[in-house]
Amino acid sequence: MPKCPIRDLRDFAVWYTPGVAEPCKAIQRHPDLVYDYTNKANSIAIVSDGSRVLGLGNIGPAASLPVMEGKALLFKYLGGVDAVPLCLATEDPDELIRTVRLLEPSFGAINLEDIAQPNCFRILDTLRANMTIPVWHDDQQGTAIVTLAALLNAIEVVGKALADIRIALVGVGAANVAVYRLLKAHGIEPAQIIACDSQGILHPGRRDIADQRTRFADKWRICCETNPEHARGGIPEALRGTDVCIAFSRSEPGVIQADWVAAMAPDPIVFACANPVPEIWPWEAKQRGARIVATGRSDFPNQLNNALAFPGVFRGVLDIRARTITDEMALAAAYELACCAQEHGTSEERILPKMDEWEIHPRVAVATAIRAQEQGVARLSKTQDELHTEARRLIQAAREAVQVLMREKLIHELPAG
Amino acid sequence: MPKCPIRDLRDFAVWYTPGVAEPCKAIQRHPDLVYDYTNKANSIAIVSDGSRVLGLGNIGPAASLPVMEGKALLFKYLGGVDAVPLCLATEDPDELIRTVRLLEPSFGAINLEDIAQPNCFRILDTLRANMTIPVWHDDQQGTAIVTLAALLNAIEVVGKALADIRIALVGVGAANVAVYRLLKAHGIEPAQIIACDSQGILHPGRRDIADQRTRFADKWRICCETNPEHARGGIPEALRGTDVCIAFSRSEPGVIQADWVAAMAPDPIVFACANPVPEIWPWEAKQRGARIVATGRSDFPNQLNNALAFPGVFRGVLDIRARTITDEMALAAAYELACCAQEHGTSEERILPKMDEWEIHPRVAVATAIRAQEQGVARLSKTQDELHTEARRLIQAAREAVQVLMREKLIHELPAG
Repeated sequence: MPKCPIRDLRDFAVWYTPGVAEPCKAIQRHPDLVYDYTNKANSIAIVSDGSRVLGLGNIGPAASLPVMEGKALLFKYLGGVDAVPLCLATEDPDELIRTVRLLEPSFGAINLEDIAQPNCFRILDTLRANMTIPVWHDDQQGTAIVTLAALLNAIEVVGKALADIRIALVGVGAANVAVYRLLKAHGIEPAQIIACDSQGILHPGRRDIADQRTRFADKWRICCETNPEHARGGIPEALRGTDVCIAFSRSEPGVIQADWVAAMAPDPIVFACANPVPEIWPWEAKQRGARIVATGRSDFPNQLNNALAFPGVFRGVLDIRARTITDEMALAAAYELACCAQEHGTSEERILPKMDEWEIHPRVAVATAIRAQEQGVARLSKTQDELHTEARRLIQAAREAVQVLMREKLIHELPAG
Repeated sequence: MPKCPIRDLRDFAVWYTPGVAEPCKAIQRHPDLVYDYTNKANSIAIVSDGSRVLGLGNIGPAASLPVMEGKALLFKYLGGVDAVPLCLATEDPDELIRTVRLLEPSFGAINLEDIAQPNCFRILDTLRANMTIPVWHDDQQGTAIVTLAALLNAIEVVGKALADIRIALVGVGAANVAVYRLLKAHGIEPAQIIACDSQGILHPGRRDIADQRTRFADKWRICCETNPEHARGGIPEALRGTDVCIAFSRSEPGVIQADWVAAMAPDPIVFACANPVPEIWPWEAKQRGARIVATGRSDFPNQLNNALAFPGVFRGVLDIRARTITDEMALAAAYELACCAQEHGTSEERILPKMDEWEIHPRVAVATAIRAQEQGVARLSKTQDELHTEARRLIQAAREAVQVLMREKLIHELPAG
């Protein structure tokens, strides 16, 4: 949809030839002017190879397009961000990296989506190191932000101290690898953590991972840094005596059994985040002593939903034209999200804001943008007030536009049923 | 801008998870359903490396973004087509080819724009041969369609027969190479044509071209096929005695001199299409006997403007989900465009429709789509009436949406001046 007025064809003398020559020449002289004279400043690409889509697995790029379009709707409706779904016909990580780098002139940021591990780690790390716009893998950083925010509030609710808790990570895919990174960035010691994948607990003796330590570099790091007692076994052994279980594993009830929850430390916290079916049903975990349970689902309390984080984070980085998204910016977003929930009062059934509290998105935007400026990765400098006003305005305008087009029947009705 | 209704967050249960899983699975089973369940069917990418932008030359991808955005506005406003500007940070034709091929799942067609020759020829030919969606280089095919339509009407106005005329092509870049191809496809004999580039008239003795005949394959073909007398010399020698001059060369008055026009055959036709300054000013050409003069400018009669062709051609190929755009489809578009002008009456000052006769776009769409169906390159089959109704509806809806958003102040006013 055009974002500039077109009264009649004569306006194309401004937007196209001959008017367009001036901004072109200006950008050629001063490359950063591309942010002023084009929509780059509000445009992102949602890039996927369709290799690990929601609960559907490797369905390929064409079949993943509906998901990327849905994500684009969320970006616009919650964050006022113009997102273009780009599903790429390759599973070669180097080809994907090369392609995304070539796209840099047109976009203010890149959102990677639904790319299988371990490729997703190298893709993200390589692109972050080589591009001067933010590159984000929502299944990693977005998930980690929301999980950390939920964890901070949950610990507060059960009255424990962060330094004393022990955490079990169940599943060591994109989500939990990123959760692990962000927990460390927040100051949690690796020694407080034990991780477990489909082959059992991670420890330095895991030959299957050691043999592929280049390809599975992150996983191997977790083997070496966590689990100081070198405990072995499976999920029940990993969970025994821990305060927190963070599961991002297989979508199947019974992956975590109620008995194992009963054997955790008192007042345990269980995040069972597989979608659509969590690793353990909330009522089962509760019956066996879980004080707080969170899932990925909207029909239970405490939904861990990436959409709490990514719209605000992208709004924030676009509004100050950030060069990257650092771990510290991700932490700032997580803290702000935790704070938003606290202001409405946290409880066992409310460790995160709800999706309809849309004020969280401009607030997350401001927190992310301010931290970027402090770290010197922002191209612009704005005050907290300016950032907040601008973020609210852009998000509200996006919603209003949808309402207006619906009212005028220019967007069609939802089919019945 | 979302194209589906979003009343509140609950609608994302349809557009995103869990609702989105069903179209994903359906597309995985039946790949062509991607056209039904996503916006692929109305989406195109405008791809450029910024290597030859309007009159600005090689300004690079970022500086070319305003042009691609302007083009996207034209696609939407005139054709109802959703166009995404993708300016790629490469000038390596193989890398560009590879990237565009990877983009295939997300788009219903590709518009290449402002890519320098000779790369643009190989890029277009390779992509056309390897992709199952239409790939178009507007500087080639779009220009050729409009030029042919103008030529057919101009010849009619001056009362000559196509089989008897001789044509001089001045400049042998992307535009005139494509014009040459389409003239041949229409049935004009190469022997009727003489071409001239910056080094002089093309003939089989041109060592500079012969030595690079792989790289400049199209140009070499013109050397071998045209100019049967093996005439030599420059532009004046090329023009002498010809009926038509088609110039797409340097933007500089005096490239074609008035004396040379005087030495053409009686009632000569001069298309001086360099932008912004034509090769000869229309009044100079007229003073020395030109019966019909056309330029690329909107401030003289007979504007040869690609925007007469590309919105309708893309509307047409998208509406029947074409696999390619054949020369025959380009011819059909040119004939329809010529026909549109005739219905309002052609004259020396009116050999093409005017830009504000927006009815031409649905008509060009229908002509292109019908020919695609006849040739078996369409995925859908529709009647002329269906095509026309649908094309009109989509184009009108795009314009209405712009007007509505302007009225509601959701698109900002043009700054004064």
